[in-house]
Amino acid sequence: MTENRPHSDRQEKGRDAYRMIADLYPLCRSITGNGVRQTLRLLQARIPLEIHEVPSGTQVFDWVVPREWNIRDAYVKDSWGQKVIDFQKCNLHVVSYSVPVHRKMPLVELKNHLHSMVDHPDWVPYKTTYYKETWGFCLSQTVLGQLTDGDYEVFIDSELQAGHLTYGELVLPGRSSEEVLLSCHICHPSLCNDNLSGVAIATLLAERLMTAPRHYTYRFLFIPGTIGAITWLARNRGTVGRIRHGLVLTGLGDPGPITYKKSRIGNAPIDSSVAHMLSHSGLPHRILEFSPYGYDERQYCSPGFNLPVGRLSRTPFGEYPEYHSSADNLDFVQPTALGESFELLRGIIKTLEMNRTYLNLSPYCEPQLGKRGLYESIEGDAMALLWVLNLSDGSRSLLDIAERSGLSFSSVLGAKDVLVKNKLLQEMEPLP
Amino acid sequence: MTENRPHSDRQEKGRDAYRMIADLYPLCRSITGNGVRQTLRLLQARIPLEIHEVPSGTQVFDWVVPREWNIRDAYVKDSWGQKVIDFQKCNLHVVSYSVPVHRKMPLVELKNHLHSMVDHPDWVPYKTTYYKETWGFCLSQTVLGQLTDGDYEVFIDSELQAGHLTYGELVLPGRSSEEVLLSCHICHPSLCNDNLSGVAIATLLAERLMTAPRHYTYRFLFIPGTIGAITWLARNRGTVGRIRHGLVLTGLGDPGPITYKKSRIGNAPIDSSVAHMLSHSGLPHRILEFSPYGYDERQYCSPGFNLPVGRLSRTPFGEYPEYHSSADNLDFVQPTALGESFELLRGIIKTLEMNRTYLNLSPYCEPQLGKRGLYESIEGDAMALLWVLNLSDGSRSLLDIAERSGLSFSSVLGAKDVLVKNKLLQEMEPLP
Amino acid sequence: MTENRPHSDRQEKGRDAYRMIADLYPLCRSITGNGVRQTLRLLQARIPLEIHEVPSGTQVFDWVVPREWNIRDAYVKDSWGQKVIDFQKCNLHVVSYSVPVHRKMPLVELKNHLHSMVDHPDWVPYKTTYYKETWGFCLSQTVLGQLTDGDYEVFIDSELQAGHLTYGELVLPGRSSEEVLLSCHICHPSLCNDNLSGVAIATLLAERLMTAPRHYTYRFLFIPGTIGAITWLARNRGTVGRIRHGLVLTGLGDPGPITYKKSRIGNAPIDSSVAHMLSHSGLPHRILEFSPYGYDERQYCSPGFNLPVGRLSRTPFGEYPEYHSSADNLDFVQPTALGESFELLRGIIKTLEMNRTYLNLSPYCEPQLGKRGLYESIEGDAMALLWVLNLSDGSRSLLDIAERSGLSFSSVLGAKDVLVKNKLLQEMEPLP
Repeated sequence: MTENRPHSDRQEKGRDAYRMIADLYPLCRSITGNGVRQTLRLLQARIPLEIHEVPSGTQVFDWVVPREWNIRDAYVKDSWGQKVIDFQKCNLHVVSYSVPVHRKMPLVELKNHLHSMVDHPDWVPYKTTYYKETWGFCLSQTVLGQLTDGDYEVFIDSELQAGHLTYGELVLPGRSSEEVLLSCHICHPSLCNDNLSGVAIATLLAERLMTAPRHYTYRFLFIPGTIGAITWLARNRGTVGRIRHGLVLTGLGDPGPITYKKSRIGNAPIDSSVAHMLSHSGLPHRILEFSPYGYDERQYCSPGFNLPVGRLSRTPFGEYPEYHSSADNLDFVQPTALGESFELLRGIIKTLEMNRTYLNLSPYCEPQLGKRGLYESIEGDAMALLWVLNLSDGSRSLLDIAERSGLSFSSVLGAKDVLVKNKLLQEMEPLP
Repeated sequence: MTENRPHSDRQEKGRDAYRMIADLYPLCRSITGNGVRQTLRLLQARIPLEIHEVPSGTQVFDWVVPREWNIRDAYVKDSWGQKVIDFQKCNLHVVSYSVPVHRKMPLVELKNHLHSMVDHPDWVPYKTTYYKETWGFCLSQTVLGQLTDGDYEVFIDSELQAGHLTYGELVLPGRSSEEVLLSCHICHPSLCNDNLSGVAIATLLAERLMTAPRHYTYRFLFIPGTIGAITWLARNRGTVGRIRHGLVLTGLGDPGPITYKKSRIGNAPIDSSVAHMLSHSGLPHRILEFSPYGYDERQYCSPGFNLPVGRLSRTPFGEYPEYHSSADNLDFVQPTALGESFELLRGIIKTLEMNRTYLNLSPYCEPQLGKRGLYESIEGDAMALLWVLNLSDGSRSLLDIAERSGLSFSSVLGAKDVLVKNKLLQEMEPLP
Repeated sequence: MTENRPHSDRQEKGRDAYRMIADLYPLCRSITGNGVRQTLRLLQARIPLEIHEVPSGTQVFDWVVPREWNIRDAYVKDSWGQKVIDFQKCNLHVVSYSVPVHRKMPLVELKNHLHSMVDHPDWVPYKTTYYKETWGFCLSQTVLGQLTDGDYEVFIDSELQAGHLTYGELVLPGRSSEEVLLSCHICHPSLCNDNLSGVAIATLLAERLMTAPRHYTYRFLFIPGTIGAITWLARNRGTVGRIRHGLVLTGLGDPGPITYKKSRIGNAPIDSSVAHMLSHSGLPHRILEFSPYGYDERQYCSPGFNLPVGRLSRTPFGEYPEYHSSADNLDFVQPTALGESFELLRGIIKTLEMNRTYLNLSPYCEPQLGKRGLYESIEGDAMALLWVLNLSDGSRSLLDIAERSGLSFSSVLGAKDVLVKNKLLQEMEPLP
């Protein structure tokens, strides 16, 4: 389906996503706090997100919503009063969820709280300490190497106290109460591919679907990773049973090949839909089996839920060196890649929307296509007509037919339209 | 099984099929008309075909039996009165189902009604216009190029009027009312591989089965393509449920490798029987998945019927350049290929006939083969004995055992005979 | 699991098995008789085997327990009175179950009763004549070639009369009445790999299990091949239904790669357990599909029983030239190979013992591993924790989880222990 959409639209969407990432980049997000709220408010300018606040201390399955963390400033000064590390220059410099501190200490003691990347001496790593009360700074190996012995002033002006976990949710009702879940995480500070690319692509898709006719109900979640997904699942157990398809969106802006990680179910319709779209996309891609490590698919695919939720990315986390470092910046993500990711996602959603099961109303022998003017060229679409007629026995969806015939879903869809118009095909009533 | 039959018998059958093709070659067949009747009458000299006549206008599912077409003569004369195209020389010259015409017209107008083959300038193509009232001539590209400007006399002495669709049917009752369907088409004029090879092989098989003991009931259909199969199915809905196995026979005389196209079911016993025979035949061959285009398997395998009917051919239609042209003639088909096709078909039929399920009557431990003199050589047939005993638990047919063990069906059959004779094996009663 | 056990233990077990083989080697065993009794009495010094005596003439399914065969002496003397063949030097010299004979005959007549190996002129073959009353001698091709014309005195001091078939059985009760069957044959005379290696390894395993906690009940059979297995099955039809896993042990002392032959079921837990252990063992190995020829798996896997019994060997019988000859001697089997085989078998048994199904007690989202101190290193065992939690939904055993995750069974077992200790996992109650 991507082939029918003008190339310029894809480029436009890629540039739009990139601008959104650039706007969100400076904010200091974490799993709670004002950085998350600012992020969600910026998104509300485009899509009518509902913002939920869940109090610290709320029990969510085996977990407890943590205290809220906020930070105003942080630095390390050397004995001459020079800032050798400055949070204002890069919010990755402070380990996320660091407790407040204001002390002097010798370099030898300070080093216990410093994190750098030996293999990439100019990059600043991204570290967190959500569930262990401590503090720390991240810096480049180069700067670390230049620190001389002596006393340093350490200052982190943060607070960690009862507050809320904040997340955004948007529900776009469809004709059916069955749902498609689209989930992205909003807990990382100045990191572009992980997680702003997912946030931007999800926002663009929501915008598009807001004005489109919808078979399914679409539910978008903009949540902090892990604790956010767990919190949402704990508060929405009644909703979970309506989820028919789902995707975790992350890492969609780097130039690497598309990577789809299957749901735990492994052969859910979302898995076959994405696999079909990818195999007909012409894009280099990989399909990975489910494994229990990764992003929020870990929670959606935990055995008690076992939801049909896969993960759509480009290069998987951990396979690109920029991952969780200051190099995951505005130079790393690319409008072209973002546009391509968006187009693919749109095609997947269209496949889900359109993939229904039809019945051949003339199942005994072939209907006479010629008298209806449908048989002009057997090389062209007539093969799609024959395949759809032959396999529409109520046991196969249009996607099943595309897979069996080797045709693209869009060819099968075109044939379906022609046959329905000619009263040779009828959509099956869903089971009550 | 082919290996046990004398080579000379295969040669003899090949020559016999070839002579039959030569006799039928000159007749001008179409989907209706006297050419079909003459063809069936010639076959009646060998097998007691019943000839059915179905009136024009009869509704058969989504189709209507067309008017009957007959032709006496046709030509195109140039302005000097010379016949440049002459139906009497080759019946492919007239587009089948051409309406009568007798006019003079300039070359420029005539050319709208002329068909030739650019890639094969000396061959005359085969064209039809069953469901569109028009007329036309087919000729070689060479002759077409020699036509000079001027007026031409066009004459087609045909008639298209209410009559009948004619087909032949032969039922050979077996011990069981379950049926094997063998179908070939008789609607093509002077074309040897497509369709006379199928007609000849089917006739030879019918002849052979007439005098053989039969487990199954055999039903041979000699029908016009598409409309004939549809007509037969519409008139025999009660019979259809008894068809357990079936083959469409066509294109069995060219020198290419055997090609089997599976039934829509894909793993019906006919599919595994043919695959087994081919893999043990030593013949080069291909097995194709079902697709909804082709010969009359399109109708038998339409979703409302979904019969276990595959297609047996050598080179598939459209993959040999002689297809649907005057080059599909008596030089193209070969007695050797015909004999080989017949032998293969005979082996398939024998497999179907013999493939039943047996029960090991001594299923607890091995029976003592030695005391029955059955254990002479473990390298030889004793392995077949052991396999048949081990797997005859009521869930596997002899063919299943052959496939699982890697032995040929004939080895398994031989072991079955020995074990039945020694009261170690018994045929399972079919389910009531 | 093999990796955790000290290498020295494996070596010790290998040497112990080798000494046991050396002790048993001189005895002249057959399918009945005093050689079998002596063998079993020697084993009783280590394990409390129960010895069963089944009278000749007892009907066992399609077979009858044969007369008992015993032999005191045998030789062939040339016309100078020199012993050219002497049973006292090698008990393979007499065809097992030879009837008594004491005659003079010319070489030409004697040769009808002589067996040698053309391809291995210095080896003495092993032959039997259990069910055909005759007699014979086996000798090397070299000695045979040196025999000159003249009369020879032939003497076999054997008896074949009503007696018993003797076998040994050891049952080690476990917490469960479900059984693991371990079967080896004891009917071959001075042959080391076939069958003494199996006898020795089975004895060592029984010794080990005698003092270990046991989930399953273990049943060891030391039986004559074929007729012994048939006799045991005929006398123990009530027991058979409790056998959950089983192995035939034979050919475990040669230096070739491990070969596992699957049960007839093909995907029984014993099949997947052995396959998993082998794939994680680092040992060269092969896995063969079931076939109905071989050792006593033929009887256990006959269709009436269809027990989950595979066969564990190194080089399969018939694929090593020493098979059934005097070269299958104390030089052919090796302590190292025996030790390795024992260790592998011990690992398989441990897998069977430990392979149960658990339930994640916190199945909704991941439990918070961090607060339990279980999340230190995601690269290490935390992946095993995540896999066990994610897949312990009651439908998968620990072995299934190991196979799905690609982890070793021992990693999965370690994770299970940690999770059970942390009350995150609980063993499923077996179905009543």
